[in-house]
Amino acid sequence: MVVIMRKDATARQVANLVSTVEGWGCSVHLVDQGEQYKVGVIGKEHPDIAARLTSLDGVDAALPGNHPFSLASREMQVRDTCIPLNGTAIGGDCLTVIAGPCSVESRSQMLEIAHAVAEAGATALRGGAFKPRTSPYSFQGLAEPGLELLAEAREATGLPVITEAMSADQVRLVANYADVVQIGTRNMQNFQLLHAAGEIGLPVLLKRGLMSTIDEWLLAAEYILSHQNWQVILCERGIRTFEPSTRNTTDINAVPVVKRLSHLPLIVDPSHSTGDWHYVSAVALAAVAAGADGVMVEVHTHPDQARSDGGQSLKPERFAELVRQLHQVAEAVGGRVPQSHAS
Amino acid sequence: MVVIMRKDATARQVANLVSTVEGWGCSVHLVDQGEQYKVGVIGKEHPDIAARLTSLDGVDAALPGNHPFSLASREMQVRDTCIPLNGTAIGGDCLTVIAGPCSVESRSQMLEIAHAVAEAGATALRGGAFKPRTSPYSFQGLAEPGLELLAEAREATGLPVITEAMSADQVRLVANYADVVQIGTRNMQNFQLLHAAGEIGLPVLLKRGLMSTIDEWLLAAEYILSHQNWQVILCERGIRTFEPSTRNTTDINAVPVVKRLSHLPLIVDPSHSTGDWHYVSAVALAAVAAGADGVMVEVHTHPDQARSDGGQSLKPERFAELVRQLHQVAEAVGGRVPQSHAS
Amino acid sequence: MVVIMRKDATARQVANLVSTVEGWGCSVHLVDQGEQYKVGVIGKEHPDIAARLTSLDGVDAALPGNHPFSLASREMQVRDTCIPLNGTAIGGDCLTVIAGPCSVESRSQMLEIAHAVAEAGATALRGGAFKPRTSPYSFQGLAEPGLELLAEAREATGLPVITEAMSADQVRLVANYADVVQIGTRNMQNFQLLHAAGEIGLPVLLKRGLMSTIDEWLLAAEYILSHQNWQVILCERGIRTFEPSTRNTTDINAVPVVKRLSHLPLIVDPSHSTGDWHYVSAVALAAVAAGADGVMVEVHTHPDQARSDGGQSLKPERFAELVRQLHQVAEAVGGRVPQSHAS
Amino acid sequence: MVVIMRKDATARQVANLVSTVEGWGCSVHLVDQGEQYKVGVIGKEHPDIAARLTSLDGVDAALPGNHPFSLASREMQVRDTCIPLNGTAIGGDCLTVIAGPCSVESRSQMLEIAHAVAEAGATALRGGAFKPRTSPYSFQGLAEPGLELLAEAREATGLPVITEAMSADQVRLVANYADVVQIGTRNMQNFQLLHAAGEIGLPVLLKRGLMSTIDEWLLAAEYILSHQNWQVILCERGIRTFEPSTRNTTDINAVPVVKRLSHLPLIVDPSHSTGDWHYVSAVALAAVAAGADGVMVEVHTHPDQARSDGGQSLKPERFAELVRQLHQVAEAVGGRVPQSHAS
Repeated sequence: MVVIMRKDATARQVANLVSTVEGWGCSVHLVDQGEQYKVGVIGKEHPDIAARLTSLDGVDAALPGNHPFSLASREMQVRDTCIPLNGTAIGGDCLTVIAGPCSVESRSQMLEIAHAVAEAGATALRGGAFKPRTSPYSFQGLAEPGLELLAEAREATGLPVITEAMSADQVRLVANYADVVQIGTRNMQNFQLLHAAGEIGLPVLLKRGLMSTIDEWLLAAEYILSHQNWQVILCERGIRTFEPSTRNTTDINAVPVVKRLSHLPLIVDPSHSTGDWHYVSAVALAAVAAGADGVMVEVHTHPDQARSDGGQSLKPERFAELVRQLHQVAEAVGGRVPQSHAS
Repeated sequence: MVVIMRKDATARQVANLVSTVEGWGCSVHLVDQGEQYKVGVIGKEHPDIAARLTSLDGVDAALPGNHPFSLASREMQVRDTCIPLNGTAIGGDCLTVIAGPCSVESRSQMLEIAHAVAEAGATALRGGAFKPRTSPYSFQGLAEPGLELLAEAREATGLPVITEAMSADQVRLVANYADVVQIGTRNMQNFQLLHAAGEIGLPVLLKRGLMSTIDEWLLAAEYILSHQNWQVILCERGIRTFEPSTRNTTDINAVPVVKRLSHLPLIVDPSHSTGDWHYVSAVALAAVAAGADGVMVEVHTHPDQARSDGGQSLKPERFAELVRQLHQVAEAVGGRVPQSHAS
Repeated sequence: MVVIMRKDATARQVANLVSTVEGWGCSVHLVDQGEQYKVGVIGKEHPDIAARLTSLDGVDAALPGNHPFSLASREMQVRDTCIPLNGTAIGGDCLTVIAGPCSVESRSQMLEIAHAVAEAGATALRGGAFKPRTSPYSFQGLAEPGLELLAEAREATGLPVITEAMSADQVRLVANYADVVQIGTRNMQNFQLLHAAGEIGLPVLLKRGLMSTIDEWLLAAEYILSHQNWQVILCERGIRTFEPSTRNTTDINAVPVVKRLSHLPLIVDPSHSTGDWHYVSAVALAAVAAGADGVMVEVHTHPDQARSDGGQSLKPERFAELVRQLHQVAEAVGGRVPQSHAS
Repeated sequence: MVVIMRKDATARQVANLVSTVEGWGCSVHLVDQGEQYKVGVIGKEHPDIAARLTSLDGVDAALPGNHPFSLASREMQVRDTCIPLNGTAIGGDCLTVIAGPCSVESRSQMLEIAHAVAEAGATALRGGAFKPRTSPYSFQGLAEPGLELLAEAREATGLPVITEAMSADQVRLVANYADVVQIGTRNMQNFQLLHAAGEIGLPVLLKRGLMSTIDEWLLAAEYILSHQNWQVILCERGIRTFEPSTRNTTDINAVPVVKRLSHLPLIVDPSHSTGDWHYVSAVALAAVAAGADGVMVEVHTHPDQARSDGGQSLKPERFAELVRQLHQVAEAVGGRVPQSHAS
């Protein structure tokens, strides 16, 4: 339920609404939209709640949610959310290009790649220190020493750092080093982790589960938002289908669907959604043409020696060419978000 | 198995190869690549066939097929196939924009829409006279009178016409009226129909089965090619997945995958792959950014009155805006095919 | 829309209903349920049709269809359809076991296998004379000579014969030799073929499309039923999913779902739904335990020499053991259809 | 890599093997198979490891793993694992029937249902105290007070208790109350949780991820086994497909596949795999006919008042009827595991 306050509502009326609603055992999320307040009312759903809410002073309308998510919805916030990040931003008019290796492997590897992607035009740096691996016998990441190397690479390049946390404990540890905490595809419905991510002050990049519907994904974002952390970046990274020629299937439809349903920024990860460097550039360009706010791409200076995902990593020179094309496509579509959802 | 002849091979050597191979009970497809001949050898696979072939005079190399399809493969033909069509072409440097209603409904409807899409920049006209429908109780199309209206619309606008045939009989009927015969998604493995399409002299637009892998799709094309009809246009129209927010999932990965595996032109149909007009423009732009040779889009002047698929049809003014953006994106990516497959 | 006549309705009242409804441009299907008539009304759906129908003399009720299919639904016919076949039957209290090779390959192969499966307890014989093959270069079946061998095997064993037709022409040809015409998974929505199958007097075994929903499957059956051919046998043969360890995924849920929605008999084909003989017996037993009316199983005396699908064929001795277990499971569940749909 | 020791190998030879292998930086899992030892060697894979191992005294053979999992494989242990549980067992010759409500809701609800399922023939009791919920606004379970109610229900009925833990912390808490710790479908690849489950002394019921392959599932089991906790019970609970008529698709093929690949016991949860009580009995019977070691079924005395999953819960009387049929089917197939994997 989203309550829209009248433009001339007083602070007292807003406060009264909040205390009334909390008195019903519901929780409240207040959004200042400049001209007017919106209030997300979450909790008990009794039949006459809309009538009760609209009878309160200063209330303009009470809209039943069209979707199971509420805080993430366009109804709650019409304008796109824009998340500041080290002098740049994710969302709004910015084109985000996150790049780096799959795993942090060593100091020389990390610094070499960081400099290469910075030079090629990346706006942020990625790299995994904690690696979720299907097999217990695969390389599991460097852990905290990997985080230290990421922090060093940020110092060296000025690029903000994005890296994954796999548990509530790791969220707090990662927050000491990183600028954005990533929640991986296998953990999209790890609810403890979502709660922990909601309670830190950092932006969270939430990957879509490879088997999750868009509604489930936005509900996972809702877990984070409901802790008052509104800095959530969605990342489409491919879904699992019957097609065997690529590792996953990029759900390009998800780009305009999410842009219509939600105000949150959305990027696409073509490295994981294709699993093959031959297809990464084509799909990255498609993502921006479809209206995504950017891409996250794996880059490695020596893909054949990478400890994970070498086959889907671009070399720096090819990545530099991609960045040039991404800017051209972004310009061609006149901003990244075709405004069909505003129809 | 693809045999590459030496550049200085004589006609006699080529003829000798053909008769030798046919003597083994194999069939032969000869492709003149300008500088040199390539020969597709199809049939019995015995272990020493490569050795036997390379021992023949004039043979440069015999390449085992990497794929179950052979004639459709890049190994058989490196350059992109380009299909001439009423003064324009599909494939190569051309951007194809096919547009029109889902079904031909009446003379006034068809002519009104045909003029509208011609004016907006379409390069070909679509419209169904025979409609495959899941339910026996749904509108099944106008049949031959619908074909006559399509031919009239071509006269009026100059646009070539693409329409579907659902059986071998209909292929021959449709060929009397249309410029391109479409094989629909449910018929991708209707082998009688594929044989019939191989035997007419017209280009064939082959939609991917909504449950078919890319390999199966290229093998369906192979049925047509093996009748010496090389004018096959592939059309990605979405695959079936678990995601319910769109009718199908556009397999955008398929664009660079097909471009790498095959020389055939490829277009994308975002109307069927999304099932919702809100998402059509974003996905059409994505297709061209990813390297597709064009798009096929449903347009209707009165979508709310359409007898089928109204909800996924664009209005003419929105379609005109899309055509403008498509040209900008095609220019931004410098031709439609990012050259990652040439790496 | 299903109209239920009163038990004391006169023949004149029924005739009046039929002529009235046909006067509206609808078609009518009359089902004599012993105690009372039911009438399927198909065609124009205008809002007040239920009111108009119930106002006619002799009409007890007019039920809006809950499903897009009508003739195939339980609302139209509560009791299970039972299809007589050479002294036995498919559906009702009978356990159907169809067995035989994937393809008819030669006279000796066909007769050897036919005798083996007859001895082991099969109730009908399968074998493909026309083979739909993904690749144009694979064995395509013996065609009419294969049909002659099937007819000879029927003479020799007394088993009724089931074989596939792939086009309307083949339906008429197959009907000269076979007892049941099979429509394969790739042709489930080949509507010309469905119409042709509706117009012959033989039972039709309709395989589910490997990516078709249950509703689409029942609508394909509706195409056949709407030609007044009520002898339709449904066959679940596995759907396409992401799981790679078996060729397809047997949709065992489909057994109780179809039994609840429809009166048509249902069998399961575990050979195609698993693609591996190791798993065939387990899944066949599961099918009967879940309430299927029987199974269709590939059997070959020399699986390693089979021209198609050898890896999923049982040897005769293993098949004989399976038949024994199937009878025990059928007895254990007290008839094949757990009566949960009668709740 | 699985090393098989000779039957006459001495303890000294085994100890030497272990220390040698550990000296290479590999870890070792020793399995006493009665007649002979098997040793799982896990870690570095260098090309000549098999040759080096077979050259050691007392070694009979060194088998390269056919699968990415090793400890869970049939190669490691031919006989079925059987897990003792409060005087009964899961696996081997036992038919396991776990039943209870989706969520623990109150003392009276839990005790009433516990007595009902005990009387009807259940062998273990289920009930969720911590509930993973897609929406942050849904009922999240009673937490520790729910665990206390489960323990009280065990006292009252004698049935062992199975309940879910969603984090490493919860594993330790649940272990204070429950007999078996469940890992849910969304957490199948929550690796922290798998490690924690490996380190408690209790059996672990590992649900398959709804979009996980069988190989990924067995690798998740491998995480637990690699901590020396061999008491792992696999639970198939349906996978996500395109079919909308049931909540998930029961992968019945997975039963014989898992039985062939692994020695671990396997049960099926038809309540979640269908999502509709109408279909639960049919699919439960199918599971046991296919060779599963048992089923887990949701039962509620007042399904219409359940706080979660009421629509898929059986009433006690229907459950009692199901238990009777399950025993008949188990008897009909002569033990639960058709021995096709021993072919």
